[in-house]
Amino acid sequence: MLEPVRIGLLGVGTVGSGTVNVLKRNAEEIERRTGRQILVTRAAARNPDKLAADPEGIELGTDLESVVDADDVDVVVELIGGYEPARSLVLRAIENGKHVVTANKALIALHGDEIFAAAAQKGVSVAYEAAVAGGIPIIKSVREGLAGNRIEWLVGIINGTGNFILSEMSEKGREFDGVLKEAQELGYAEADPTFDIEGTDAAHKLTILASIAFGVPLQFDACYTEGISKLSPQDVKYAAELGYTVKHLGVARREDNGIELRVHPTLIPEKRLLANVNGVMNAVVVKADAVGPTLYYGAGAGAEPTASAVVADIIDVARLIGQPAHTHVPDLGFRAERMGERGVLDIEDIESAYYLRMQVKDRAGVMAKITSILAEQGISIEAVVQKEAEDDAADEPILPIFMVTSQIQEKSLNATLKELEALDEVVGSIVKIRIEYLD
Amino acid sequence: MLEPVRIGLLGVGTVGSGTVNVLKRNAEEIERRTGRQILVTRAAARNPDKLAADPEGIELGTDLESVVDADDVDVVVELIGGYEPARSLVLRAIENGKHVVTANKALIALHGDEIFAAAAQKGVSVAYEAAVAGGIPIIKSVREGLAGNRIEWLVGIINGTGNFILSEMSEKGREFDGVLKEAQELGYAEADPTFDIEGTDAAHKLTILASIAFGVPLQFDACYTEGISKLSPQDVKYAAELGYTVKHLGVARREDNGIELRVHPTLIPEKRLLANVNGVMNAVVVKADAVGPTLYYGAGAGAEPTASAVVADIIDVARLIGQPAHTHVPDLGFRAERMGERGVLDIEDIESAYYLRMQVKDRAGVMAKITSILAEQGISIEAVVQKEAEDDAADEPILPIFMVTSQIQEKSLNATLKELEALDEVVGSIVKIRIEYLD
Repeated sequence: MLEPVRIGLLGVGTVGSGTVNVLKRNAEEIERRTGRQILVTRAAARNPDKLAADPEGIELGTDLESVVDADDVDVVVELIGGYEPARSLVLRAIENGKHVVTANKALIALHGDEIFAAAAQKGVSVAYEAAVAGGIPIIKSVREGLAGNRIEWLVGIINGTGNFILSEMSEKGREFDGVLKEAQELGYAEADPTFDIEGTDAAHKLTILASIAFGVPLQFDACYTEGISKLSPQDVKYAAELGYTVKHLGVARREDNGIELRVHPTLIPEKRLLANVNGVMNAVVVKADAVGPTLYYGAGAGAEPTASAVVADIIDVARLIGQPAHTHVPDLGFRAERMGERGVLDIEDIESAYYLRMQVKDRAGVMAKITSILAEQGISIEAVVQKEAEDDAADEPILPIFMVTSQIQEKSLNATLKELEALDEVVGSIVKIRIEYLD
Repeated sequence: MLEPVRIGLLGVGTVGSGTVNVLKRNAEEIERRTGRQILVTRAAARNPDKLAADPEGIELGTDLESVVDADDVDVVVELIGGYEPARSLVLRAIENGKHVVTANKALIALHGDEIFAAAAQKGVSVAYEAAVAGGIPIIKSVREGLAGNRIEWLVGIINGTGNFILSEMSEKGREFDGVLKEAQELGYAEADPTFDIEGTDAAHKLTILASIAFGVPLQFDACYTEGISKLSPQDVKYAAELGYTVKHLGVARREDNGIELRVHPTLIPEKRLLANVNGVMNAVVVKADAVGPTLYYGAGAGAEPTASAVVADIIDVARLIGQPAHTHVPDLGFRAERMGERGVLDIEDIESAYYLRMQVKDRAGVMAKITSILAEQGISIEAVVQKEAEDDAADEPILPIFMVTSQIQEKSLNATLKELEALDEVVGSIVKIRIEYLD
């Protein structure tokens, strides 16, 4: 049998404990697969008492750097999260010639280019399957499983908290605030839920997915990000009347003049598999030129699903120990010297179909006025519904109108919406939600 | 840059041509990923004129063995299908120390153990992602992406022709024969559709999936196989009334006393993602202990989807050239010396819930009689529907009754069904379809 692989663990919280538990519980199955033992020999954390796993065989302490420097550690597994000290520790592990496994999406999305460059120079690999969509092997599938393809676009539900909230709003007609509170009580959402509901967490993951799909540098700062906190249950309901489901999606698409990189609430046709991914589950659809669309679904978070990805990475990385760099899959799926420079398109430059909702005064000819302004700008209407006035007793009843437009550049749409909002008949501002057909 | 990888192609039909097309069209993207060129240098087939791709740079001929023996071939790609001469050519390529990529499910399911043993002895790898579920990277996901897990079960729609037929029957209430004819006209089904509709093709794929999931030898002969040709539109309709969709599934499950390995029409709850996989698409759900359920969806057949998997395998295998065996993922995901001996359970020994349909005479107390016989055998009824007599004018009207039972061993169920069929009130034989809840 081969020598055991010795793991140095940074962080013993939820995922750290999950990783120890999975490695210990499945030790025999893993040995059957790999022909070697995988042993956590050292673990460190600010608070080592948080380890919720059998500590036998693990030298447990608070000195993070000693784990990274230890001679008896082959692979460093970083599960502390955040930027620092994670970044410094990962760079130091690389400097020490050790392969690294991490679940840290923020670190990779913001400092990945620096980290991968350092790793390339030392001939080690930095694996991060657990950073995107938890236990779903999406990084492996895109980087390796679809390696023969030119990837055209990918679209994903990549934040479980947000999807739980939207699923509840869709299925039960609930308000955002109430569901968020429940999600926090259930432990799905953090006390400070900003990263989840405002789309930052999804943007981290989308940034990584776009890089490995298109072979472009990590460009988190250029990712357009719009959360779900302002979404009204009314729009969710109207979308359903039109045959759509609202999901918080990450969308990355390769266009001739750049890539689209955007996270926002999105209408998708209710028949699509992605529309039926509910609760805290994640799913990613990848459209590639040879294989067509493929979809990957599973748990996007949680101790053991995330640990599943961490352990898979450890097993992969263990096979690389002592092997030349050309046997490694490049960290971002493309070789550093062949990375594209393709810029990220401004959100105003994308083309999309849109759901629009406006409040109009109940006057003769109002619909004709609106449609003619849209038509002048080359926007046709695929579907439109005008509802009864919500308050018949009002002096001048206000009618909600909602519609689906044809494909149009967002810049043109925005100009047209301004024109519509300036009409005397249109009350307040117009709600706009992008649509993806996924075909 | 690294040396080019030189491919020797056996077979230039649909998938062979697709592979050449994908390699040529995406040559730049593949080079960006791998840092090397992948060139088809030789190709042979009984009828080389069938190559529907640019032949430039390919020495094209009819001598299959010369491709396998050529010094200027690093990887042999076998895309001729069937048992012979595929088996002999693959073994000869291995004997020559060449890595092999194949899309041949029949070959792997029946002769895989022999082929992998030969490959292990020569230190080469035999890759077969394209053999199961076309372009979906399911082999890679199970063998590598879920390598930290103990896999509990997997369930898949792994034959596109069958799924197309069932989707049409479900959505449009059509009869089996008519849809099959259309599938043949559309080119989805072969002139001799037996392999697809009787489940042989699905059984080949399931055999392979079960091996890599549980680490057991390939046991195609032990796979229970039941086709869809006898399925009546009535059962599809009644299943829908009960909230189920009928799919032709492959089911592999690890039990304490062996593994279940079975292909048959199956009712699944209509809300499951798998129930919404329609047309010629494939999908596999894998339930594993750490990650929970994950699902993989995509095109299960076709020139370029299959080529996508073939090319991914070529890229993987290219990384292994000249590397020691411990850097390879074992061909069946588990090391040969640690392969389990776990036997396949007889279909009578499985436990399942069942959909039952029977025709009964319209007599007082008939339902009580049936339910009491079921209850005596410990079978409870989760749902039951009794329809109106189909022919009121008959002397003695016959009523269809259909129901869903609790979990029961198939042996006991079969005995009980015999007892029921012996009743004077029950006309003809009882239809039985297994149910999977996928939870």
